[in-house]
Amino acid sequence: MKFSFKNDYSEGCHPNILQALLLHNTNQQAGYGEDEYSLQAKELIKQKIQKADSEIYFVSGGTQANLIVISSILRPYQCAISAATGHILNNETGAIEATGHKILSIEKEDGKLTPEDIIPVLENHRNIPHQVMPKLVYISNSTELGTIYTLGELEALSTFCKENKLYLFMDGARMGHGLTSEISDLTLEKVAELTDVFYLGGTKNGALIGEAIVINNQELQQDFAFNIKQKGALLAKGRVLGIQFLELMKDDLYFDLAKHANQQAMKIKNAMKEKGVQFLSDTYTNQIFPILNNEVIQKLSEKFEFYVWKKVDENFSAIRLITSWNTEDEPVNDFIEIIKTEL
Amino acid sequence: MKFSFKNDYSEGCHPNILQALLLHNTNQQAGYGEDEYSLQAKELIKQKIQKADSEIYFVSGGTQANLIVISSILRPYQCAISAATGHILNNETGAIEATGHKILSIEKEDGKLTPEDIIPVLENHRNIPHQVMPKLVYISNSTELGTIYTLGELEALSTFCKENKLYLFMDGARMGHGLTSEISDLTLEKVAELTDVFYLGGTKNGALIGEAIVINNQELQQDFAFNIKQKGALLAKGRVLGIQFLELMKDDLYFDLAKHANQQAMKIKNAMKEKGVQFLSDTYTNQIFPILNNEVIQKLSEKFEFYVWKKVDENFSAIRLITSWNTEDEPVNDFIEIIKTEL
Amino acid sequence: MKFSFKNDYSEGCHPNILQALLLHNTNQQAGYGEDEYSLQAKELIKQKIQKADSEIYFVSGGTQANLIVISSILRPYQCAISAATGHILNNETGAIEATGHKILSIEKEDGKLTPEDIIPVLENHRNIPHQVMPKLVYISNSTELGTIYTLGELEALSTFCKENKLYLFMDGARMGHGLTSEISDLTLEKVAELTDVFYLGGTKNGALIGEAIVINNQELQQDFAFNIKQKGALLAKGRVLGIQFLELMKDDLYFDLAKHANQQAMKIKNAMKEKGVQFLSDTYTNQIFPILNNEVIQKLSEKFEFYVWKKVDENFSAIRLITSWNTEDEPVNDFIEIIKTEL
Amino acid sequence: MKFSFKNDYSEGCHPNILQALLLHNTNQQAGYGEDEYSLQAKELIKQKIQKADSEIYFVSGGTQANLIVISSILRPYQCAISAATGHILNNETGAIEATGHKILSIEKEDGKLTPEDIIPVLENHRNIPHQVMPKLVYISNSTELGTIYTLGELEALSTFCKENKLYLFMDGARMGHGLTSEISDLTLEKVAELTDVFYLGGTKNGALIGEAIVINNQELQQDFAFNIKQKGALLAKGRVLGIQFLELMKDDLYFDLAKHANQQAMKIKNAMKEKGVQFLSDTYTNQIFPILNNEVIQKLSEKFEFYVWKKVDENFSAIRLITSWNTEDEPVNDFIEIIKTEL
Repeated sequence: MKFSFKNDYSEGCHPNILQALLLHNTNQQAGYGEDEYSLQAKELIKQKIQKADSEIYFVSGGTQANLIVISSILRPYQCAISAATGHILNNETGAIEATGHKILSIEKEDGKLTPEDIIPVLENHRNIPHQVMPKLVYISNSTELGTIYTLGELEALSTFCKENKLYLFMDGARMGHGLTSEISDLTLEKVAELTDVFYLGGTKNGALIGEAIVINNQELQQDFAFNIKQKGALLAKGRVLGIQFLELMKDDLYFDLAKHANQQAMKIKNAMKEKGVQFLSDTYTNQIFPILNNEVIQKLSEKFEFYVWKKVDENFSAIRLITSWNTEDEPVNDFIEIIKTEL
Repeated sequence: MKFSFKNDYSEGCHPNILQALLLHNTNQQAGYGEDEYSLQAKELIKQKIQKADSEIYFVSGGTQANLIVISSILRPYQCAISAATGHILNNETGAIEATGHKILSIEKEDGKLTPEDIIPVLENHRNIPHQVMPKLVYISNSTELGTIYTLGELEALSTFCKENKLYLFMDGARMGHGLTSEISDLTLEKVAELTDVFYLGGTKNGALIGEAIVINNQELQQDFAFNIKQKGALLAKGRVLGIQFLELMKDDLYFDLAKHANQQAMKIKNAMKEKGVQFLSDTYTNQIFPILNNEVIQKLSEKFEFYVWKKVDENFSAIRLITSWNTEDEPVNDFIEIIKTEL
Repeated sequence: MKFSFKNDYSEGCHPNILQALLLHNTNQQAGYGEDEYSLQAKELIKQKIQKADSEIYFVSGGTQANLIVISSILRPYQCAISAATGHILNNETGAIEATGHKILSIEKEDGKLTPEDIIPVLENHRNIPHQVMPKLVYISNSTELGTIYTLGELEALSTFCKENKLYLFMDGARMGHGLTSEISDLTLEKVAELTDVFYLGGTKNGALIGEAIVINNQELQQDFAFNIKQKGALLAKGRVLGIQFLELMKDDLYFDLAKHANQQAMKIKNAMKEKGVQFLSDTYTNQIFPILNNEVIQKLSEKFEFYVWKKVDENFSAIRLITSWNTEDEPVNDFIEIIKTEL
Repeated sequence: MKFSFKNDYSEGCHPNILQALLLHNTNQQAGYGEDEYSLQAKELIKQKIQKADSEIYFVSGGTQANLIVISSILRPYQCAISAATGHILNNETGAIEATGHKILSIEKEDGKLTPEDIIPVLENHRNIPHQVMPKLVYISNSTELGTIYTLGELEALSTFCKENKLYLFMDGARMGHGLTSEISDLTLEKVAELTDVFYLGGTKNGALIGEAIVINNQELQQDFAFNIKQKGALLAKGRVLGIQFLELMKDDLYFDLAKHANQQAMKIKNAMKEKGVQFLSDTYTNQIFPILNNEVIQKLSEKFEFYVWKKVDENFSAIRLITSWNTEDEPVNDFIEIIKTEL
């Protein structure tokens, strides 16, 4: 069977999680997130972010987190703003609009938003009450293109949002990868300080399921649990989420796993760079987009699975490679071997 | 710690499931339900129900299943009909209405619907276009009160629904318990034959998470997956659901677990009946509602957790006891012992 | 052609309105409610209710008013409470639920709600976050059954709502009829003082179209216009609504018209009472529900149109008669003549 | 007072309409669109479009028409496609998204869609079920920019939509202006033949309120009235809409009014062209977008109201002028006089 670099959710979960599920399996616990594991995991996350007054909720996946957060925050006539590459715009089957809210889209090469990007959107939505009211800025870190926000960039965005009464929401499906990138100067504490809401993605970083929504803005905390229940996201056995995040947060396993994924991607990237390969964008997380000639792509695809992302010209295309918490050295080395031979 | 009879989702999952998760953990699989375990589990369910042309989708929980099924079937102006005790009416934070649909409620002591119950509802909704159009009948088996449908009752309801162009949807959060009740003459094949859609509940019968939605009516199958994705219910690691249902369906583990839960409840029920205890309703599944005097309830609550369901008079209240796939003999015997001693 | 007592919107509008439309027809005005007529009409209403800080918006009809008000007030997980006879429950094709909100229904013979009716509903919705949160009490005056609230009743309800953090919303599709009822001790000023939102119905009281939504609670005023636009209720030629309410409010025409309608109904009612006729409910507005034997109903139906409302027994049924601002003496006297002859 | 060229809904309605309202004012009629005027008006429209099997419904305004039509056609996971200038995208406060549906936007200079514009949108939405499914193409004629579709363009679009199982919906808020443009080769019969649904706008063409929705595709006709009621758009006094469309359709008043508006705009346009004025787009309907230097704009604004649409450079801006059914010769000539003098 071919090894897959298609995504970071191809395998099960980190063994510690299965061990913990096994260990606690027959303990009777309260349902719906009131179990002791969930309570402990929440405390652990609050410690990590150094914010005792944040509230934390666990849900199963990213689309679910996005639709619950956004629909709980916005009034019916308010809308979200997102980079055109945003997951909520392209890969969630209109989940946000299905809750009644438009998303305004901004074209950005690198998938990141700046105050300068947002200003004209605000200016073009002043015809009250004939237009939606922009109220929430959706960003992701790392982004759907593998890029990341610097501390300075996030501070600027956060300040701008506060000044313009916009909520700032960070999709953290790949938060671990973003924060442990070798070029990142952002920390989880800073994310918590600078955003109104964010989430820590488990699904793409070693959990079976699970994202931890962290609500830092206290005005957005009220009654949040109702929204989770109403959208069908409140698991009867909330323990499944609690146990997983307890394991991931212990001893920083969460960050170790993400760092590992990043490092495996960087090995491939660096090997390619040595061979003069160009990239669609210059990423330092577990997603890379090398531009290769079609023959090399053909050769690689005999042994590996990956997405051909974008045709560049007659002879060249960009491919997308994603490594995971569980990507071992062997497939990485095999892949690099082919690159070295074929280029 | 007190043993809890509060519900059937207090423990983790059947050990076979954890073993299977462990066994397949590092196999790379396609995401979003295209993994081999999900495909196999779907085939196995189709065999059990003897309907090759049904379509099967796995989601995480009951509220999620209910809201996705109902919102995917109904046009904006159509509504569901449910017994007043229906889970969708009382325990889902308005999840169905949040998708835009009214639920018409019918008061029934036993939580079950008959054609005779539905006829007046249809008659009272003929003022076109000033009223919602009833289009879907929601039932559950076993019901929220622990009661079950007989084959004859389900046949009558199914025929009535077809004649009146109503879809029949059975909530099977406790399907196993309903079908393995000692007084049930209904089979899974018959459920599949007589309903348009139903689901097999995993969460309350030995899975960590998971309900298997079975769409028998082919006209309702089209594009169903879009609805799952849009509501945030499509797990990236669909394998988690596939592996669980594969284990549950193998060798009828699903039914064995439910039967066990029922039997433990019946032991308690019979012990009480011998002592002359009355019940709120005469159930034969894993939920029982004995009426006890307050002193006995007090005594029991020293060693056990359970819900006091309804005050009957000054001295007596009904309690709700729920047993599970994992309820062992010891707590059951201990509980019976107290009953024998105190009554 | 038979004269119709079927409802109070069978005719066009009061002649003053047509004259005003004619008079101002070619004046160019700003669109979307910024016309001078709308602005003047709003001022006039504020004077009538003695509340300078209320905000007023005109929309076309009652269902529209109800759905805009309720959906603008409630958060996604919150719901409305209504008497089971409420227009929003029975005659609006699920318009409220279509905006995502459940309505909890309370059975009441007279169509009116009291604190005592609401208390158990609140008590049965304490299972946070598994149930919708009751947040708005919907009442109508006069009610769908022609009954009215006394000042004392409204005060009690208003106090209760404030204590329980519930919003109080009065549907005033027939506000004129309610307030000018010979037994009413309620005034428009008091309605404005005791409710968070109410509306003055024009459609059923001499306008072509139009209801004036009055928002008394300032916290509910913010951004309200967005909701009107989003629901398709903001007329480009808002002047049509402004001119009508300007005419209706001038010299209390609005109340004169309603009083006239009430009086015509009372004439019929009194004539029947003299003949010993019983009524479904004892109303003092423009709706009456006399119980007549089938032969008399047959006789009346040869000359008049009306709804047979409810079968009482083999020989008797209740009919519903509605008079309007435009019901002249002749049909009323003719009707009474038959009653006198046949009973 | 300055004369306004700001829009085509600044005045009341055509005098014939007021006369008809007066004439029929006291006739008792059935409510909710079952009045004889509405029935007659529908028949008249069917004759005009030469399609006896189309169904017609009257609503109050354009946003209302758009949201009802689109939400009634689309399943929850389906979306609309629109030119980026589409009214539904920019000027309806997210009304379509509020019913749960995304709108995909296509940038077009002239505000018109072609098959070539739509093909890449379809190709970019093939990742089933992770993306919304495009299902309806929204166009307007005349467009928001005053441009129009030729017969050939509409035929090509219609064929493309049928081949790709897309519904074609034409917003006809300014249908009269589009069809009576001096360069139009399209007829109302052809519009009815080539679209699934369209509407005839009354509000911007001499009515007080009112758009006539025409459903040509029979599969979309079923139960449509429920949607109108549910969205709060079913007027109790439907006669108000029926009487207006009856007058507008009689003797082609509708088209005469639109032609008049167009001609007045063309007079101004031609006068400007003689002076060498450039236009943002080359329109032949009642909207023109001349580019003028700021001094001339200043001069004109002393006597006229209009929107400054777009800054072109330091010295020049485009303004928008709209003429209406009621724009008389005097203001047009006065305006032209200034142009002649100042340029």
